[in-house]
Amino acid sequence: MRASRFFVSTLKEAPSDAEIASHKLMMRAGMIKRLGSGIYSYMPMGLKIIRKVENIVREEMNRSGAVELLMPVVQPAELWQETGRWDKMGDELMRVKDRHGRDYAIQPTSEEVITDIARSELRSYRKLPVNFYHIQTKFRDERRPRFGLMRGREFTMKDAYSFDRDVDGLKKSYQIMYDAYVRIFARFGLQFRAVAADNGAIGGSGSHEFHVIASTGEDAIVYCPDSDYAANMEAAEALPLDATRAAPTQTMTKTATPGKAKCEAVAELLNIPLSTTIKSIVLTVEKAATEKEAASKQVWLLMLRGDHVLNEVKVSKIPGLAGYRFSTEEEIVEYFGTLPGYLGPINTKKPINVVADRTVANMHDFVTGANEADYHLTGVNWGRDLPEPTVVDLRNVVEGDPSPDGKGVLAIQRGIEVGHVFQLGTAYSEAMNATFLDENGKPQPLQMGCYGIGITRILGAAIEQNFDDKGIIWPSAIAPFEVVLCPMGYDRSEAVKSETDKLYAELQAAGVDVILDDRGERPGAMFADWELIGVPHRVVIGDRGLKDGQLEYQGRRDTEATSVPLAEIASFVKARLAAQ
Amino acid sequence: MRASRFFVSTLKEAPSDAEIASHKLMMRAGMIKRLGSGIYSYMPMGLKIIRKVENIVREEMNRSGAVELLMPVVQPAELWQETGRWDKMGDELMRVKDRHGRDYAIQPTSEEVITDIARSELRSYRKLPVNFYHIQTKFRDERRPRFGLMRGREFTMKDAYSFDRDVDGLKKSYQIMYDAYVRIFARFGLQFRAVAADNGAIGGSGSHEFHVIASTGEDAIVYCPDSDYAANMEAAEALPLDATRAAPTQTMTKTATPGKAKCEAVAELLNIPLSTTIKSIVLTVEKAATEKEAASKQVWLLMLRGDHVLNEVKVSKIPGLAGYRFSTEEEIVEYFGTLPGYLGPINTKKPINVVADRTVANMHDFVTGANEADYHLTGVNWGRDLPEPTVVDLRNVVEGDPSPDGKGVLAIQRGIEVGHVFQLGTAYSEAMNATFLDENGKPQPLQMGCYGIGITRILGAAIEQNFDDKGIIWPSAIAPFEVVLCPMGYDRSEAVKSETDKLYAELQAAGVDVILDDRGERPGAMFADWELIGVPHRVVIGDRGLKDGQLEYQGRRDTEATSVPLAEIASFVKARLAAQ
Repeated sequence: MRASRFFVSTLKEAPSDAEIASHKLMMRAGMIKRLGSGIYSYMPMGLKIIRKVENIVREEMNRSGAVELLMPVVQPAELWQETGRWDKMGDELMRVKDRHGRDYAIQPTSEEVITDIARSELRSYRKLPVNFYHIQTKFRDERRPRFGLMRGREFTMKDAYSFDRDVDGLKKSYQIMYDAYVRIFARFGLQFRAVAADNGAIGGSGSHEFHVIASTGEDAIVYCPDSDYAANMEAAEALPLDATRAAPTQTMTKTATPGKAKCEAVAELLNIPLSTTIKSIVLTVEKAATEKEAASKQVWLLMLRGDHVLNEVKVSKIPGLAGYRFSTEEEIVEYFGTLPGYLGPINTKKPINVVADRTVANMHDFVTGANEADYHLTGVNWGRDLPEPTVVDLRNVVEGDPSPDGKGVLAIQRGIEVGHVFQLGTAYSEAMNATFLDENGKPQPLQMGCYGIGITRILGAAIEQNFDDKGIIWPSAIAPFEVVLCPMGYDRSEAVKSETDKLYAELQAAGVDVILDDRGERPGAMFADWELIGVPHRVVIGDRGLKDGQLEYQGRRDTEATSVPLAEIASFVKARLAAQ
Repeated sequence: MRASRFFVSTLKEAPSDAEIASHKLMMRAGMIKRLGSGIYSYMPMGLKIIRKVENIVREEMNRSGAVELLMPVVQPAELWQETGRWDKMGDELMRVKDRHGRDYAIQPTSEEVITDIARSELRSYRKLPVNFYHIQTKFRDERRPRFGLMRGREFTMKDAYSFDRDVDGLKKSYQIMYDAYVRIFARFGLQFRAVAADNGAIGGSGSHEFHVIASTGEDAIVYCPDSDYAANMEAAEALPLDATRAAPTQTMTKTATPGKAKCEAVAELLNIPLSTTIKSIVLTVEKAATEKEAASKQVWLLMLRGDHVLNEVKVSKIPGLAGYRFSTEEEIVEYFGTLPGYLGPINTKKPINVVADRTVANMHDFVTGANEADYHLTGVNWGRDLPEPTVVDLRNVVEGDPSPDGKGVLAIQRGIEVGHVFQLGTAYSEAMNATFLDENGKPQPLQMGCYGIGITRILGAAIEQNFDDKGIIWPSAIAPFEVVLCPMGYDRSEAVKSETDKLYAELQAAGVDVILDDRGERPGAMFADWELIGVPHRVVIGDRGLKDGQLEYQGRRDTEATSVPLAEIASFVKARLAAQ
């Protein structure tokens, strides 16, 4: 490609609404152009990258046996009503009426449509298994779109849906997709990690997220450097920090802690480690009256070590706590007899359910609130001072926690979620009555999996992982161009022009995606443009070097240029490309 | 591709709402699946064809120097309000509100967005010319969607937009696109015709439509077999059928024609050719009162030969007739003194404007209404009986009319419009204030052209041109597969399996898009499927033929199969493919 036949448009300054590096750099490099809040045009330089990402995804999806189709952007509301998502999705679902007043959704995903296709096309076990995917425009009406392509409203996603006759089949299809995703992210040339994720009702290893590692990532991901354990923060299992509980050494004592409502303050006042204090979290579960039962209200006390953080996803899975909410101050006073800050499991005003985190359950001589303003209890011990609690994993893991697989300690890094594989089971097929006939002619619900990759989000994530103060540093596989040729005086020097054209033709013939900058820009501006855009390999062709038969090569991460003899330059560049 | 890894799903019967061949066949061949009115999922077999169409379009657009980008599906209303299309487009424009109540359009085309991009990106003459295109999902809320992909609501279109500094540049950009379109349609392997079309205000050769020829086409297209003249019916120029006017031979006579209100009836009663009668068409142009002028009303009489048909596009361009409407019966009685059926230019009750078609202007001894019920005037002659009229081309051409280029006579055939190139000029750039700075730093409006191809419509048009009672007959370039291998007993016969696999590998290695039908269907069902789907080349591999070292080849249009020696089959098939 000659730059004069492409569209190169860079900016010195990013617009003021761009907050993060990838958003700023994509705007400055002329890859995207804002049309409205969370809505971007993909300019030629951006679209070229998107196409490379799509092609890698498509090749690996096809290799895995998935079949591509294309489902519509505008989808009838009736299907969304069948699964209840028409109501559940709330304002995120973009809704539209046609000229006859009929309701439609602009698709955020396509579970409903693919299940509708499946229930008419996959009516026999002989059609199974099958995995359909499409790469299509999506819309989510985010409350606060931001970060460019990272949290846009209109975006491109690859979504795949597998259909199997039973759970074993689903697990196989899921593993095939998992393996394809590993190949895909490896081919992108990005550092990534697949982490176990919560998948609600199904449990087990039924869901993984794929994260691109970046210090600016929104998500904390947990892994064990000594094993292959990895999970997102919601799903990472926290083991008890002490394997067994030590015997009591202190007597339970009511201690004045005036105005010290936080664990940190209590620990400081009493000059004890924070890790001997207990945080009390109070939750309410209400049930409305039914024909058979009167309305009821239960109050729960969750006990967490003072330096730990509650994991709300884990809480939501505790039997009896589905649909919980944080208790009101009135409820707390009603059940505990005092205001928050001095709560504990001992001497409550009304009966409550007590749940202790695994680590708390193995603590001894600990500190809790005394259920009286300005007082705590110290030297509290299970069994002696209060009954043995229900023990549950309640907390977020922290760095240095033991790995759940017993093979070392956990580390935490930041990631950007760009892919998700998920065992749906029969949730959609049952809601939409999508069944197949088995060998005995008996209808069975289809077992479904769904598998997404945020195509446009990949661009943002790749940049967050790979940039410097000059601009973007693309991995070759998804760079807009692999190599840029920068001739110094293409229109003035016969020698420069002819050597540039020769090298350009040679690299093109070798299948290298090369751009020749024939725009006639000054060298400084030309170099700055391509460093900003992030082309990974640059060759400068100038009269000065040519006199000695030399060209200048510089990799985007190199601090200095390398002189390469004219005769060797093509093979030198090809070797650099192959080395990646 | 192995059929077992693809998704082949055919139907014996088309759904009852499919009215035309292409719709029926695409449904039966499992290429599309209806999701809602005018909204289809593209199933794997259909998407594969769409991708081939897209790739040909993309290659030729790139070759022509156009640059691909991608504009959003959901577009802010503000841009559409700037050009006035938010109101003008009426119910066809699908409108949507986001969670904050802001208005958006789902794009039917992207003139507004590209002009918005242009006004910020193309601010200097140095950036010009440039031609941006995208291939994107479109939505038009048709009042009556039908004919499958032919008149759907959601569809895929390639739309390109050129920007030039002046009209000469626009004409060059336009010609480049015209030439690219000719290459594109030729590569599809379809019979097509580019015809001049009306382009409103700009005139001249500023617009062409590309039609796929098909006897079922909705549009009449006009061409001269002896020259390159071609136009759509709206734009085809009608010359006078007599080069000069003969002298009068009859006296004007009031003749009783009781109850004969139509030209045909009058001609029959008087036993004269229909071509000596005149049809009277009465139009009204009203102007509302302004500060300077009172409201006014003009009535016009358009005179057309009895056997000719009015061309309303031509009428709308007559000076003074912009915004015309057909007159009411009250107006006709007010101005002519009688009811329709007996109207004419002579002895009107109030003054009217008379316009004669070119052919009418050269008639003599003709028949018109007498402006009195049940009477006509015969032997009427211009100049003698009534003043010379204003002469305008008013009518549709008919087969056998002289070609406007003087090189023969016109023929008419049916076509399906699949492409349109159009010189927009400065309509959008002036409405949206999209200017560039010329060499003198002076702002000038951008000269725009727009160029569309209905990607998904191509499929319907190709089928309407190429089908028989067995199914579709794809041209190789846009066939879902070029060749199908039909082994008889792939799972039973070692010889069949090994020869099939060998041929499959050999054709794949040669870059042939081949599908191996390993589904294990009975031969009859297998052959019927691929004839329905329309794969242009088929090879049958069976034990019977293999005994004699023979395979069976049959082209989709061939009436019989050809025996081909095993050793020659690959080169035979490649030769057949190359011959197309």
